[in-house]
Amino acid sequence: MTVTYSSKVANATFFGFHRLLLKWRGSIYKLLYREFIVFAVLYTAISLVYRLLLTGAQKRYFEKLSIYCDRYAEQIPVTFVLGFYVTLVVNRWWNQFVNLPWPDRLMFLISSSVHGSDQHGRLLRRTLMRYVNLTSLLIFRAVSTAVYKRFPTMDHVVEAGFMTADERKIFDHLKSPHLKYWVPFIWFGNLATKARDEGRIRDSVDLQSLMTEMNRYRSWCSLLFGYDWVGIPLVYTQVVTLAVYTFFFACLIGRQFLDPTKGYAGHDLDLYIPIFTLLQFFFYAGWLKVAEQLINPFGEDDDDFETNWCIDRNLQVSLLAVDEMHMSLPKMKKDIYWD
Amino acid sequence: MTVTYSSKVANATFFGFHRLLLKWRGSIYKLLYREFIVFAVLYTAISLVYRLLLTGAQKRYFEKLSIYCDRYAEQIPVTFVLGFYVTLVVNRWWNQFVNLPWPDRLMFLISSSVHGSDQHGRLLRRTLMRYVNLTSLLIFRAVSTAVYKRFPTMDHVVEAGFMTADERKIFDHLKSPHLKYWVPFIWFGNLATKARDEGRIRDSVDLQSLMTEMNRYRSWCSLLFGYDWVGIPLVYTQVVTLAVYTFFFACLIGRQFLDPTKGYAGHDLDLYIPIFTLLQFFFYAGWLKVAEQLINPFGEDDDDFETNWCIDRNLQVSLLAVDEMHMSLPKMKKDIYWD
Amino acid sequence: MTVTYSSKVANATFFGFHRLLLKWRGSIYKLLYREFIVFAVLYTAISLVYRLLLTGAQKRYFEKLSIYCDRYAEQIPVTFVLGFYVTLVVNRWWNQFVNLPWPDRLMFLISSSVHGSDQHGRLLRRTLMRYVNLTSLLIFRAVSTAVYKRFPTMDHVVEAGFMTADERKIFDHLKSPHLKYWVPFIWFGNLATKARDEGRIRDSVDLQSLMTEMNRYRSWCSLLFGYDWVGIPLVYTQVVTLAVYTFFFACLIGRQFLDPTKGYAGHDLDLYIPIFTLLQFFFYAGWLKVAEQLINPFGEDDDDFETNWCIDRNLQVSLLAVDEMHMSLPKMKKDIYWD
Amino acid sequence: MTVTYSSKVANATFFGFHRLLLKWRGSIYKLLYREFIVFAVLYTAISLVYRLLLTGAQKRYFEKLSIYCDRYAEQIPVTFVLGFYVTLVVNRWWNQFVNLPWPDRLMFLISSSVHGSDQHGRLLRRTLMRYVNLTSLLIFRAVSTAVYKRFPTMDHVVEAGFMTADERKIFDHLKSPHLKYWVPFIWFGNLATKARDEGRIRDSVDLQSLMTEMNRYRSWCSLLFGYDWVGIPLVYTQVVTLAVYTFFFACLIGRQFLDPTKGYAGHDLDLYIPIFTLLQFFFYAGWLKVAEQLINPFGEDDDDFETNWCIDRNLQVSLLAVDEMHMSLPKMKKDIYWD
Amino acid sequence: MTVTYSSKVANATFFGFHRLLLKWRGSIYKLLYREFIVFAVLYTAISLVYRLLLTGAQKRYFEKLSIYCDRYAEQIPVTFVLGFYVTLVVNRWWNQFVNLPWPDRLMFLISSSVHGSDQHGRLLRRTLMRYVNLTSLLIFRAVSTAVYKRFPTMDHVVEAGFMTADERKIFDHLKSPHLKYWVPFIWFGNLATKARDEGRIRDSVDLQSLMTEMNRYRSWCSLLFGYDWVGIPLVYTQVVTLAVYTFFFACLIGRQFLDPTKGYAGHDLDLYIPIFTLLQFFFYAGWLKVAEQLINPFGEDDDDFETNWCIDRNLQVSLLAVDEMHMSLPKMKKDIYWD
Repeated sequence: MTVTYSSKVANATFFGFHRLLLKWRGSIYKLLYREFIVFAVLYTAISLVYRLLLTGAQKRYFEKLSIYCDRYAEQIPVTFVLGFYVTLVVNRWWNQFVNLPWPDRLMFLISSSVHGSDQHGRLLRRTLMRYVNLTSLLIFRAVSTAVYKRFPTMDHVVEAGFMTADERKIFDHLKSPHLKYWVPFIWFGNLATKARDEGRIRDSVDLQSLMTEMNRYRSWCSLLFGYDWVGIPLVYTQVVTLAVYTFFFACLIGRQFLDPTKGYAGHDLDLYIPIFTLLQFFFYAGWLKVAEQLINPFGEDDDDFETNWCIDRNLQVSLLAVDEMHMSLPKMKKDIYWD
Repeated sequence: MTVTYSSKVANATFFGFHRLLLKWRGSIYKLLYREFIVFAVLYTAISLVYRLLLTGAQKRYFEKLSIYCDRYAEQIPVTFVLGFYVTLVVNRWWNQFVNLPWPDRLMFLISSSVHGSDQHGRLLRRTLMRYVNLTSLLIFRAVSTAVYKRFPTMDHVVEAGFMTADERKIFDHLKSPHLKYWVPFIWFGNLATKARDEGRIRDSVDLQSLMTEMNRYRSWCSLLFGYDWVGIPLVYTQVVTLAVYTFFFACLIGRQFLDPTKGYAGHDLDLYIPIFTLLQFFFYAGWLKVAEQLINPFGEDDDDFETNWCIDRNLQVSLLAVDEMHMSLPKMKKDIYWD
Repeated sequence: MTVTYSSKVANATFFGFHRLLLKWRGSIYKLLYREFIVFAVLYTAISLVYRLLLTGAQKRYFEKLSIYCDRYAEQIPVTFVLGFYVTLVVNRWWNQFVNLPWPDRLMFLISSSVHGSDQHGRLLRRTLMRYVNLTSLLIFRAVSTAVYKRFPTMDHVVEAGFMTADERKIFDHLKSPHLKYWVPFIWFGNLATKARDEGRIRDSVDLQSLMTEMNRYRSWCSLLFGYDWVGIPLVYTQVVTLAVYTFFFACLIGRQFLDPTKGYAGHDLDLYIPIFTLLQFFFYAGWLKVAEQLINPFGEDDDDFETNWCIDRNLQVSLLAVDEMHMSLPKMKKDIYWD
Repeated sequence: MTVTYSSKVANATFFGFHRLLLKWRGSIYKLLYREFIVFAVLYTAISLVYRLLLTGAQKRYFEKLSIYCDRYAEQIPVTFVLGFYVTLVVNRWWNQFVNLPWPDRLMFLISSSVHGSDQHGRLLRRTLMRYVNLTSLLIFRAVSTAVYKRFPTMDHVVEAGFMTADERKIFDHLKSPHLKYWVPFIWFGNLATKARDEGRIRDSVDLQSLMTEMNRYRSWCSLLFGYDWVGIPLVYTQVVTLAVYTFFFACLIGRQFLDPTKGYAGHDLDLYIPIFTLLQFFFYAGWLKVAEQLINPFGEDDDDFETNWCIDRNLQVSLLAVDEMHMSLPKMKKDIYWD
Repeated sequence: MTVTYSSKVANATFFGFHRLLLKWRGSIYKLLYREFIVFAVLYTAISLVYRLLLTGAQKRYFEKLSIYCDRYAEQIPVTFVLGFYVTLVVNRWWNQFVNLPWPDRLMFLISSSVHGSDQHGRLLRRTLMRYVNLTSLLIFRAVSTAVYKRFPTMDHVVEAGFMTADERKIFDHLKSPHLKYWVPFIWFGNLATKARDEGRIRDSVDLQSLMTEMNRYRSWCSLLFGYDWVGIPLVYTQVVTLAVYTFFFACLIGRQFLDPTKGYAGHDLDLYIPIFTLLQFFFYAGWLKVAEQLINPFGEDDDDFETNWCIDRNLQVSLLAVDEMHMSLPKMKKDIYWD
């Protein structure tokens, strides 16, 4: 479920963002505490080995190794690689959100353009609306692990009322080696055309208006599918991950506090706890976590889109709109600013 | 209220931007002076402790600590993290502005396509227009704290004339666990269809033109809602905030003036006031404030969108346009360039 | 007036851009020479004080101060802050250019869809066209200082033939506390509807085509207005300006040539003229000037949009197109590639 | 074939991305192992020469050379150049994906707007659909090496059933020195117009709806062609490649472990294996590989678009949709939420 | 002529991009060899003066100067300034390519919507098409030096068959101080309206479809014109150029090999040829050349758009499409997948 905190930051106040640092759900701490513990334990282990187990000569060797690692840790371009990569991931994530299919535009048109309050009219509108919801469900099943878990087979889709048994039979009998999520839209087109022939849809203008909107809906669906199908090239993700992991590996050795008495530059002080290295761990690993969380926003992370909720909302609202509310109108009254 | 300064920078003049440095409303000083005072007080406190309270050995230890902090302060990638983050926030902020729903396009169409100057015609146009304004009001209530304060309950919406008592009853009786801001648009569609049946809207072309424009309006509304609902992932904001706060924490200790007689590199001079550190505080904290201010532009910051003003303007102007001005035309006269 | 140099850089030639360095109009030199003189004078003054007035001890103190300033000057992230900021400003500037309202699309439609070569037909087309031009003029007056200077009152608008006295009266009598630049578009819609009723516009398809185009025009206008109304947040501009000014302030002291005999690192040479610092002044101050020039492209800078020219061009061309050229057609002849 | 890993990263888990590091197909290792071996061999060779073959004086000279190279290696702005370049390449790559022509929108329209279940009607719809598929095939042949290998001549196109022998004759006889991929769309337009004359397409609204969609399809096709025709300027690619290659060349010498006994700064340790340099090779060369892979996504890389699969899918699905499924409708039944 | 190399990089292979390093046409070498020679000669001259002509004291002074220059060369933010600037230029360049006007969409519509195979019908379609081509030619003449060279006067336009003598007379007689490239579109609109009155265009839907497409074409044309008219602000280009030139000027002195016996830091080695500085010259100057080449893509560079070819192609293809191919249809036959 998305973590919404916009109301908390409505106004820029005294140290406005510090309150956000204290949240747990969806927070950097919740996402990172395991990695952090691993990192801290490893650091401590190495530190203890250096301080307690190594002999003098080994210590000297370790110290040189540490300085060597530290020097290279700084050369790893983590900041930039992450900056460019996360920007890419965030843009893709937002585009996916913007392209989530909402049936609202279609339901307004269906409610106003497909006429008849009798049972046949109601059936028409509900069926058209159902096809629309069915298509997005089929896409969501392909894209979202959460939805797939809820609808693991087509039986579940039929059971949930998105498809009738009849439709399923036809759907299954269609011979095509390819995905068939476009089938309900063919039905939609055929049904709308039939409705026009019967005079339930008045003319071509109304019909094409419906068809255009349906195609827009389809484009949203297929774009979502495209984002899932063609991700950020694996190589790119690997490059970034390698860079970050290498950096922390180098830090484990390179950021050890060396014996201050040996007079190594920048090693005058033994604080035991490498506070800034730990904070750096939070920045960089946290930044990478942003990418991990957003790269597939259809999972079950705290910050992923609530696809199952969308599916329910869309079905409930769109059936309500095209059936119960069809042609329902409050009595017109003069508003209070009349004259 | 938005701070407009574009007329002040119309021309690039001698040190053109320096005038902007002297503004107070919406300025960096107004936003930051509290944080600045805290920072300055803490810095001074630490400075006094170092100079007056610490013993010799403690001073030596503090000096090492200070140098250690300074070295790491420079390694924190504040600039980049802020650069990428603020760019993201600014883009989102501007997109929200661009997607503010304005009823102007609809009011032109309603005024020209819904005919009849009699009372029923007027009622039709006013009611259609009211539904449009009602929808955006419902969205603004969900999105903007300022609007929510003004319309805390649906009663306030009815009182302000955006909804009639009748409409409210129907609205409340609709059974749906989900938000119902789409309901007035169903009414809009139904009413427009009825108007077409009555011949007040001439044909499907006119009707679909209205419906298309209504759907565009709805998309603006739902996009605004989307921006509020799905913010920048909390982790990202936390990463950036942590980076900036850590940097300043490191500066508090690392940028102290150390005893020049001890000969630490870069510590030949004791200026008492760390002028450049204070300025850096202004840059980085100011940059972060840009983000804090824009991350939710529907609050009550100096630079937030004046949503309440929008609501009033839209209602007043759109009713004026579709009612009083319907079919009003100045007498056509030859313009001065005729022949 | 815009400075066009594209024909000068059509081909990438030997040191292709060096020719651009020698232009004066709209150039960095013209924009910066005053600031440059101030900077040079201040630098020289400080230099003279250091060399001639200070005593030995004061000199030593100044030298430490200079080294201190130099060290921090390098820490100020001018490059990045400017890079991100200027990118933002340039994008906004270009979007404003792209959204300048041109009446060409409308004039083609009006010329071909509003029929009748008689006086009434001419009057219709000219009046419709005039309303279009009037709207953009009202917007330009609000947005551009240059246009506002030319049309300081509505009287000037009437005098220039954009509005008739009649129209002005109606316009003034409309009671609305808000801007009224949308009024001519209501007239446009009403007039077009009337023309359709009279059969001058054939059917709803033609009419809606006109209305759609008019709405597009309105969107350009209101977007321009939006850019003026909601600028880049003041804080951002202040942050950038502060960063650049601080940098130069630090340079004034930190980039002084110190006595080479004292053996300060990097101070082996006394060149008197700090050539690279002066060049840096040009880069950074020039980059900031790019922002100053573009942040409001409706002023009177060398590189601002020629709004007054646009207004004249649009009126002249659009009246010509819808009136004199209405239904004018060259005799059709076989072209030279016939068969 | 595209490498899809989105289901592997649905949730942000403990060290979420590390699993991606172990994939082979489409991975950085598969793409880079040859270059890596070359680099490692060269490094080892130079190392052996330095350690075993050089005399004392030659060693000293080599050591100076190594330090010299190392110093400049760090000055080469590989990170930035790559960051900006890869961002550009990735954006182009994604735009190409988004503009892949899919016939789904057209097939919905054809199925619902071109009437008649008799043989002539079927022929009409199938032929229209075939023209659409033919056009994209012609484009893909020009753009994709994989498709070109499959359809090296027009004979193969005819054989595969995308074109009839008749059509091919007409196509070949058209005299034009230019590419002729637009020809099937002329046929499409002519055939649709004929269908309208015969009453198979009801009216202009339906017809123009088809034509608009066809033009959209054409724009996708021509944009793909444009991306192929006008690539990223060669100079840019060369600049980036030169920068990366130079960097690695400098590393070969500059990152050698020098004799620790000589006391060169940063050369206290001889690890034999330059672990961080090898990792850097992976980052930078891997980042460049991202560009190499994406710069032409129509090749046969692991991550390239599966164009041949698209062609097959589109033909199969679209014929199925407009023929077998034309006017096929499941029986309408009340859904389970009825009342 | 554009340099197309996409087929060379279809697959990511062993050192995939190295092949691109060996191309000459459109390459970095061809673009830069002159500047490179100048740079190398100057460097050598300074080197020779230092080594052979200067006396001991002068050498010492030069050495200090060199170190001073080197230190500042590194402070010039060439990478960033270039990165941001080139990104801007590349985006503009690509947008210009995407907005090149292609008449294909219009020719499909004209061929299918303007009826009549008799001479009058042919004349109608050819003339409409010619007006479209004429408009883009007028724009190209204003924008592209290559096209202007080919059509220096309107006589050449008439001679080339884009305009008849009659049309030219009317065109010339139109009194307007402004550019008149919109005139053929007025004729287009008038002619189409006339065709509709004559029944050659069936109804308003077909007509408005044509007009909409024409307006889209016009927008492409005017956007191209806009890109030419309002370039990147001169100041920005000057800032970038100054930065790069200054950098190289500083390198000429600062990257000289100083006498190794003097023991200056980083000057232990005299290689005579400053290999890395020369490579840096290639990166930075090459990057700037990318900008020089793309800033006006309508010149005669190797990588500029082939506008003259476009003009020929568009005329030939569009006349062919609307005339010879009008209503030509291959015989419909069952495709090989029938049943």
